Amino acid sequence: MTKGWLAAVLMISTSLSLNVQAEGKVYRLKLAESWPTNFPLLDSGVQRFAEMAEQMSDGRLKIKVDSANKHKAPLGIFDLVKSGQYDMGHSASYYYKGKVPNTMFFTTMPFGMTAMEQHAWYRYGGGKELMAKVYQPHGLLTFPGGNTGVQMGGWFRHEINSVTDLHNLKMRIPGFAGEVLAKLGATPVNIPPAELYTALERNTIDALEWVGPSLDLRMGFHKIAPYYYTGWHEPSSENMFLINKKVFEGLPEDLQSILQTAMRLTAFDIYVEATAMSTNNWETMLQEYPDIKVRSFPKEVLIALKQANDELLAEYAEQDPLAKEIIESQQAFAKKARAYTLISDYGYLQSTKDL
Amino acid sequence: MTKGWLAAVLMISTSLSLNVQAEGKVYRLKLAESWPTNFPLLDSGVQRFAEMAEQMSDGRLKIKVDSANKHKAPLGIFDLVKSGQYDMGHSASYYYKGKVPNTMFFTTMPFGMTAMEQHAWYRYGGGKELMAKVYQPHGLLTFPGGNTGVQMGGWFRHEINSVTDLHNLKMRIPGFAGEVLAKLGATPVNIPPAELYTALERNTIDALEWVGPSLDLRMGFHKIAPYYYTGWHEPSSENMFLINKKVFEGLPEDLQSILQTAMRLTAFDIYVEATAMSTNNWETMLQEYPDIKVRSFPKEVLIALKQANDELLAEYAEQDPLAKEIIESQQAFAKKARAYTLISDYGYLQSTKDL
Repeated sequence: MTKGWLAAVLMISTSLSLNVQAEGKVYRLKLAESWPTNFPLLDSGVQRFAEMAEQMSDGRLKIKVDSANKHKAPLGIFDLVKSGQYDMGHSASYYYKGKVPNTMFFTTMPFGMTAMEQHAWYRYGGGKELMAKVYQPHGLLTFPGGNTGVQMGGWFRHEINSVTDLHNLKMRIPGFAGEVLAKLGATPVNIPPAELYTALERNTIDALEWVGPSLDLRMGFHKIAPYYYTGWHEPSSENMFLINKKVFEGLPEDLQSILQTAMRLTAFDIYVEATAMSTNNWETMLQEYPDIKVRSFPKEVLIALKQANDELLAEYAEQDPLAKEIIESQQAFAKKARAYTLISDYGYLQSTKDL
Repeated sequence: MTKGWLAAVLMISTSLSLNVQAEGKVYRLKLAESWPTNFPLLDSGVQRFAEMAEQMSDGRLKIKVDSANKHKAPLGIFDLVKSGQYDMGHSASYYYKGKVPNTMFFTTMPFGMTAMEQHAWYRYGGGKELMAKVYQPHGLLTFPGGNTGVQMGGWFRHEINSVTDLHNLKMRIPGFAGEVLAKLGATPVNIPPAELYTALERNTIDALEWVGPSLDLRMGFHKIAPYYYTGWHEPSSENMFLINKKVFEGLPEDLQSILQTAMRLTAFDIYVEATAMSTNNWETMLQEYPDIKVRSFPKEVLIALKQANDELLAEYAEQDPLAKEIIESQQAFAKKARAYTLISDYGYLQSTKDL
């Protein structure tokens, strides 16, 4: 009896201890982000994501965030996560256009969707499935990583009144939008962020685009180039979380759910914070530099840019069936989403703006 | 030695079993929502919220959702949660204006902020703290519950060309917006949703507003009243989650965090789904009823509505210092947020809309 009882206690205690061990096991993930330490909005957003996941999992999910200062590969997150050197990443999809061209469609596109139109496309219009077609062959899962809203058209020393004014214009504007501008005779260049202010000040470049008031204020471009153009080339820049598929699948289901929820909520939180930062920084800019002049490009210029954009997209579509599928999906959804945006948000802003 | 060992096993086993019990304890919460069973967007969003919380907590958090069909008090969620009959609720803050007038500021206000402006205000502009001042005295915590975007101005049989056309107009438009219209001589009425179509068809009312394409399509108003007006009175209707403060504080910290994250993400998910639904339903409406005519109220009418609105707000502010504080906070933030919206989203939509 005593022996039997002892055996029973031992069995229970063993099973309990296994149970506790399984439940209590700590999963440690390493995340590489494209951003430097203390970079506003994005580094801080990713740090909050890690805290959120740790809190929800009661400490079972610990995510160590390495900034670009540490891993030295701000534009190499795709490879770091694909190879398994890091479990996760936070970056922007279009940074990897040189490696996998179809990645460029999942951040934002010139003349493309606004942030909410794009979120609706991603979730309910086939975007998520198309992004998986691009990333899953590389063993990567992706999730929205936060929208910084409409990217402004940039800071210009002089007004742009016609397409001719774009000829030989030397402008810092990377990626696909740079290709579009090049078709109209401009010279797009890329310059490291830390050298941008000096390049503009010393006339090495005539114009540049960065983000919007949220992140432009600290760069100080408004002190040199007073014309601030409304956006056309990045109407809703969405960052992304990346996670190595095998790592994700190796997590218990509840932690997968926690991770996914924390990533998706962080994306929204970053969008809200970007809106608040832009709101406050735009007010500061206007107060400190009343000479800032907001302009939109003339219709003639926008029509030419749109045409160049459509020609380039047609070339991409011709080269690759998946590119064609993505472009057609985006354009079809954008068309109907814009019809709604124009009667809702736009209609409201338009009809009430001068009251 | 044997005895000591046995005692040790017993101690460990007892502490383990307590531990497992604490970790494994299931918390059951009851949620009352304002919506009927299977109500698109909102009931389905709340159901997904409950699933999300259960998955993340590995079954330790079970939330039972009772629709209005069950509890029969669609506009009584405030009391159901305050009294503890339910632990949580999902509703809209302005439904409780008759009970606590200051609740009306936290859904949307005529001529107020767009959804993202309002989210920025709530998180970074003092909105959250002001909402707590209104709800905490009732033992309630609140969280964003999902935005249905710009509410359309409504369906009208005839065009509104001047303020005179509003005189004696019998319109279904509840709440504060109804008070505004009444100041201009209209007769606002409230009619249960199920009777709206017939009331419009039989000329019991001349016009009505409901939501927007997302939820208007199934109501069929476009078959009777072809003029669809852009919004002015609810530019961003945000629902809310309510939770009894004592219940929330009685949960372990990790479950508090899970609950909070699931509520906040559900709010964003509903906003995305509302955008997708409106996109698709607006396309359907236009295809099936090409006679729908989109209009904005003439400037004269909007100016008169805005003036009536401002007068009413001034009255509220005079009666109650907290109302004054909320109104001033919203107006100050809205002013700077709108300045940014106009150069960002609006600037983009405006300059690219006819390309």
